[in-house]
Amino acid sequence: MANDPTPPARPSRRGFLKAGGAAVAAGAGLGATGVAQAAQAAPGKPHADDPQRAVEPFFGAHQGGIVTPQQSHTYVAAFDLTTGKRDDVIGLLRAWTDAAARMTQGATAAPLDTPDDKPAPDSADILGLGPQGLTITFGFGPGLFTQEGKDRYGIANRRPAALVDLPRFNGDQLVAQKTGGDLYIQACANDPQVAFHAVRQLARMGYGAIAMRWGQAGFLSGPRGQTPRNLMGFKDGTNNPSIAKAPLMNQFVWANAPDAPWMQGGTYTVVRRIRITLEHWDQMELGFQEEVFGRHKYSGAPIGMKNEFDALDLKAEDKDGNPVIAQNAHVRLSNEASNNGAQILRRSYSYNDGTNFYIERWPPWRQETEYDAGLIFIAHQGDPRTGFIPINEKLSKFDMMNQFTTHVGSAIFACPPGARPGSYIGAGLFET
Amino acid sequence: MANDPTPPARPSRRGFLKAGGAAVAAGAGLGATGVAQAAQAAPGKPHADDPQRAVEPFFGAHQGGIVTPQQSHTYVAAFDLTTGKRDDVIGLLRAWTDAAARMTQGATAAPLDTPDDKPAPDSADILGLGPQGLTITFGFGPGLFTQEGKDRYGIANRRPAALVDLPRFNGDQLVAQKTGGDLYIQACANDPQVAFHAVRQLARMGYGAIAMRWGQAGFLSGPRGQTPRNLMGFKDGTNNPSIAKAPLMNQFVWANAPDAPWMQGGTYTVVRRIRITLEHWDQMELGFQEEVFGRHKYSGAPIGMKNEFDALDLKAEDKDGNPVIAQNAHVRLSNEASNNGAQILRRSYSYNDGTNFYIERWPPWRQETEYDAGLIFIAHQGDPRTGFIPINEKLSKFDMMNQFTTHVGSAIFACPPGARPGSYIGAGLFET
Repeated sequence: MANDPTPPARPSRRGFLKAGGAAVAAGAGLGATGVAQAAQAAPGKPHADDPQRAVEPFFGAHQGGIVTPQQSHTYVAAFDLTTGKRDDVIGLLRAWTDAAARMTQGATAAPLDTPDDKPAPDSADILGLGPQGLTITFGFGPGLFTQEGKDRYGIANRRPAALVDLPRFNGDQLVAQKTGGDLYIQACANDPQVAFHAVRQLARMGYGAIAMRWGQAGFLSGPRGQTPRNLMGFKDGTNNPSIAKAPLMNQFVWANAPDAPWMQGGTYTVVRRIRITLEHWDQMELGFQEEVFGRHKYSGAPIGMKNEFDALDLKAEDKDGNPVIAQNAHVRLSNEASNNGAQILRRSYSYNDGTNFYIERWPPWRQETEYDAGLIFIAHQGDPRTGFIPINEKLSKFDMMNQFTTHVGSAIFACPPGARPGSYIGAGLFET
Repeated sequence: MANDPTPPARPSRRGFLKAGGAAVAAGAGLGATGVAQAAQAAPGKPHADDPQRAVEPFFGAHQGGIVTPQQSHTYVAAFDLTTGKRDDVIGLLRAWTDAAARMTQGATAAPLDTPDDKPAPDSADILGLGPQGLTITFGFGPGLFTQEGKDRYGIANRRPAALVDLPRFNGDQLVAQKTGGDLYIQACANDPQVAFHAVRQLARMGYGAIAMRWGQAGFLSGPRGQTPRNLMGFKDGTNNPSIAKAPLMNQFVWANAPDAPWMQGGTYTVVRRIRITLEHWDQMELGFQEEVFGRHKYSGAPIGMKNEFDALDLKAEDKDGNPVIAQNAHVRLSNEASNNGAQILRRSYSYNDGTNFYIERWPPWRQETEYDAGLIFIAHQGDPRTGFIPINEKLSKFDMMNQFTTHVGSAIFACPPGARPGSYIGAGLFET
């Protein structure tokens, strides 16, 4: 690992950066002050005409990536804390906050002007790609508060009641290496490399204090301005509460329980890795697929209706008195009318990890190479005890869709409110 | 799996399609004739201002996806033939050709007007997404010609000498489930769902005659009009022969050996799944990373030069007489000057399959969850015996980069020339 012999003609990297070489993103050399100013001045509006140049604010009352209009790619990851020191955790959160503020504004994780004999502070694979609407959302898993009954960081008594351990659901086939985690990072952007880059830099900053538990890339392909379709070919998210309606977000998404004032303005996030047996699904009759969803496939309309946003009439019956939307249709079981009015904000992505060798779980129990693809289900809510948990209790037992889906990963996180410039994500937990 | 009870108010799907519902892509109902016309009339120019609406021609002297300007996403897959019947293979290639011609022009794999009690002919997850510059490239592996010495389809004597079985290279750690295959499909598009959709429909059409061997999603994030960077942060493809120069393509890319006239205008494609240990790479000194590549990281210039496209001077020495570009730098070993003038057309994509539990292959041999990410190396050439094979023989032994890369998958295919409307891909192999 000898260093590069420096030939006379070699330009200094610092000189190159000062000259503003075309390959280096405009903000790459931005100092901390510059970033804070850029972040405060950021309009926070997606550039509808150019997703590459879209900039989302980092600082604010809420973290980005929750009620932000959904970007086209994500990389989500969870980490186990390996340090026993409270100060290490705080130091990491401070460093993560600074780096995330930089990266969301289109800069590298740190300035690039390190000497050649040091590891570069950024992998640099995003130079020139632009901010791409990047948001970075941090969350805290149950293990941050207690691990095997131990209060590692002196905050066990601050664990919110809403940050429950998820129960085992019917049909769960969870893989430990895709499940859980003490810390969560969700990076969303309009480019896959920009999303992954963000997590990669943050993960590296934690070497020695954290270990990667799982990471997952995802994507969302939607026609402009329309509800995107998931890999099953149906529109996904039609019935989401509107992110444009602040009262709905206050009611269903933002945490406000008095037992955890540090979580005011935060949210609870459930992540489920749901494999979909696409080969099996694709062989089903079209009418049956629609019965499973309770919606028409091409239009997205509720069964019997014409348009995607036509009201869902769960009481409608056909001339023989049978329900038009089946009793165990996905849209019925997950609807707020079937769940005491509960709503969650779904912000899911498809994933596609190529193929794997599987043993099928339906007759004739073939063994073969199949797609390792499906849905990274991500749901934000004010309290999972009245949100995801009762809804999924019902779905896991009765949903007709279950014969095509397998939950192989699961995690829950408390995503704290946004940070003020100069402070850091989670300051309220550690400092108030 | 009872069928949907049809309520009186339910609109017929055929009626919906006739009405040209907004959710259905304009070309979705295009008949075979219409597709052929559209394909012939297609300008073949990417819509630089709108990658979603870009259309690439399907029919022509060459298949698309070889000298086509690289799209941002891919899904590549290989299949094993399970049928023993020559007519099944021909029938499949005919059906694939028709469906591929439709899909590249923005249509579904087949018209959507099937009755509700039949499986839909298309998964429909791409409705409304547009053609996205989709290309679909087909290839034939050695197993199409002979399998365990058996001439299954009566074409063993037509196997081109250039379609060699790849030798074992130094350091190869090939996984059988990521290696080989009798048939190859490479779908490239400006959207990940559109690329995967194409392979998924084609794979399904082959049920009963083929079995999936491996599939892999990939992406390429490049600043507009610039050489993209791979996950190691370096520009990748600077030294590629220019696809704009037909003489170079004739010299290096298109097959022209007299022993296989059916391959005239085709190419030989090598696919390697190369895992990159990003965690390890990111900890290396910047100067060392540049020494490994033989290029400066940020500018992409050869070591000692200023600009990406400055000429590579492999004879340059520093004042002590040492080579400016190290003897085992990647750029030196892979350069045509080190390989008897051989060039290959690289058209690689990054891949990102989340994380896996690995046992590291370098000290201190840790066991941990690491990125399952790297490069889907794809190289097209007129003859791999003078292209990829000698170049990779050298790289696999001497390239400094090898300590960060592991070849875990490998395949070689003969990609025949393009088809004429009314004919099919591979007709020259079976019918002349």
